[in-house]
Amino acid sequence: MKATVLYGPRDVRYETVGDPKIVKPTDAILRLAATCVCGSDLWPYRGTQPVEQPTPMGHEYCGVVEDVGSAVKNVKKGQFVIGSFATSDNTCPHCRHGYQSSCVNREFMLGAQAPLLRVSNADGTLVATKEHPSAELIPSLLAVSDVFGTGWFAADAANVKLGATVVVVGDGAVGLLGVLSAKQMGAERIIAMSRHEARTKLAREFGATDVVTERGEEGAAKIRELTKGVGADSVLECVGTQESMWQAIAATRPGGYTSYVGVPHGVSLDGARLFFTHVHLHGGPAPVRRYLPQLIDLVLKGTINPGKVFDLTLPLSQVAEGYKAMDERRAIKTLLTV
Amino acid sequence: MKATVLYGPRDVRYETVGDPKIVKPTDAILRLAATCVCGSDLWPYRGTQPVEQPTPMGHEYCGVVEDVGSAVKNVKKGQFVIGSFATSDNTCPHCRHGYQSSCVNREFMLGAQAPLLRVSNADGTLVATKEHPSAELIPSLLAVSDVFGTGWFAADAANVKLGATVVVVGDGAVGLLGVLSAKQMGAERIIAMSRHEARTKLAREFGATDVVTERGEEGAAKIRELTKGVGADSVLECVGTQESMWQAIAATRPGGYTSYVGVPHGVSLDGARLFFTHVHLHGGPAPVRRYLPQLIDLVLKGTINPGKVFDLTLPLSQVAEGYKAMDERRAIKTLLTV
Repeated sequence: MKATVLYGPRDVRYETVGDPKIVKPTDAILRLAATCVCGSDLWPYRGTQPVEQPTPMGHEYCGVVEDVGSAVKNVKKGQFVIGSFATSDNTCPHCRHGYQSSCVNREFMLGAQAPLLRVSNADGTLVATKEHPSAELIPSLLAVSDVFGTGWFAADAANVKLGATVVVVGDGAVGLLGVLSAKQMGAERIIAMSRHEARTKLAREFGATDVVTERGEEGAAKIRELTKGVGADSVLECVGTQESMWQAIAATRPGGYTSYVGVPHGVSLDGARLFFTHVHLHGGPAPVRRYLPQLIDLVLKGTINPGKVFDLTLPLSQVAEGYKAMDERRAIKTLLTV
Repeated sequence: MKATVLYGPRDVRYETVGDPKIVKPTDAILRLAATCVCGSDLWPYRGTQPVEQPTPMGHEYCGVVEDVGSAVKNVKKGQFVIGSFATSDNTCPHCRHGYQSSCVNREFMLGAQAPLLRVSNADGTLVATKEHPSAELIPSLLAVSDVFGTGWFAADAANVKLGATVVVVGDGAVGLLGVLSAKQMGAERIIAMSRHEARTKLAREFGATDVVTERGEEGAAKIRELTKGVGADSVLECVGTQESMWQAIAATRPGGYTSYVGVPHGVSLDGARLFFTHVHLHGGPAPVRRYLPQLIDLVLKGTINPGKVFDLTLPLSQVAEGYKAMDERRAIKTLLTV
């Protein structure tokens, strides 16, 4: 098959690789319905994260089971399934506590920007729908696999409750879906921090009530101004830089909650400064598996349409352009048809 | 009156100062029943924290109201009262959210190692008992003012629940009272990290079920060993150094809770490392005011005896020896009679 391999900064290739095979008896092979480019793919693409060797890219996926290993019991050939970017056995103590992305058998997915994909821990990772979904639902189901699951975790980890005042730092696809998630959880006021017109528009469509364009300390001051000097109950940090982390923490009221869901790059938190903010801090790789049944259900019912974050659709063969458009912020998120 | 003033590292003086007076109409003056030396007093005493000018010391107190300002309504002359080390109006938004130690009118107490004390925000800060307590209850009521209130916050911020596995990092008075608090909250297993015999004994008396003497990464590995590789649900960090912070975080299971309640000194948290631990992190100056009514009640009922952390009692005139004994770890905590 032909698939996506990153060779170095801005060097994405669509090239022939071997078809994935069952390696362990707990594996499954999927034929993907669609795949996409993640904001986190841009870290190595931009050279912020080193690329040690040619790396198969992509970790968001949904599709039909093509084959299963001999130990797989819950998932059957021909089923339509969605899984998380982190595979998990869903039985270890961390999984049972709802932190499947810290499963003792966790593997981070690789190689999903391809027509076929091997998924480890298939029984614990994949959730099947009753029927094959219609084509128009595919983008939203694909989004559940990572970007929406991560936005949902951001809102959950920031303790978004009915009536809460919520701030979302970051207008990438995760931030936008953090807005959607906060709205679903009953937030009364949702302040999106963004200065990008198309993204602001989608944020408002997803439920943002206010938009703040200032950043850093100035942005946090604006949030305090908008909240009568108090700060927000819940702040979702969806960027992962030093500036965005402190912007988020400083926008949170004492006793409020800051979540962070993208791998922090170059972030260092001064303990004494953090201490006096009095915030609750929680984050990490989103335990998407915990939320899969609920989020798939919301999508299938038509309650929400997280797939709207895909504003560019390309055939997989044009994956390099998909990265480029996101890198240049011409696209929020690129869907790749296979 | 004569009171305690710190001039520089290891230079504690008991000397004549002016009697405190009502400065603002919201102030009260207390005649203290007893006072004490705090572990946090050792930071400037040891020179870890600079002493810019001669500084009146002490922030833990209980006693009888001697005078009140014209605006004070809830507190009356002659009442026995206990207050927090941080004063608060108890009406601002942060107070109403239960974070009185981030009150917009907060003042950190100074000068409580003295017979008389001015307390700002008297109405919001002081809680009166119905009757004057008997002498044997004074140490425990004094403890509520900071050290016990802080240990309680440590347990609460670490989300200690019925049946939880709890680790306490630090065998100072706050850590020991963190053990007591976790026990009160229904923890099933309480692992105290300590290598000091007298402190370990008191930890066991307060409810510790296990003691671990290893520290740092080795200590965290021991906790994982004791918890079948999982880690603890709740970890209370009661020291405030870089080593103890990471020891606490590394001892926490993914999705578990780490609290930190002493001002961190030289602590810096790497964002990416923290991210992959998946812990909830919460701390700050303990909002003791939130807990005062409940903790005073527990003490007056005789349910608990947090005053046991005082293993050295000296007259106020010997305050310098009180510091020295704690600095040399000959005493857990020094009570000063006035």
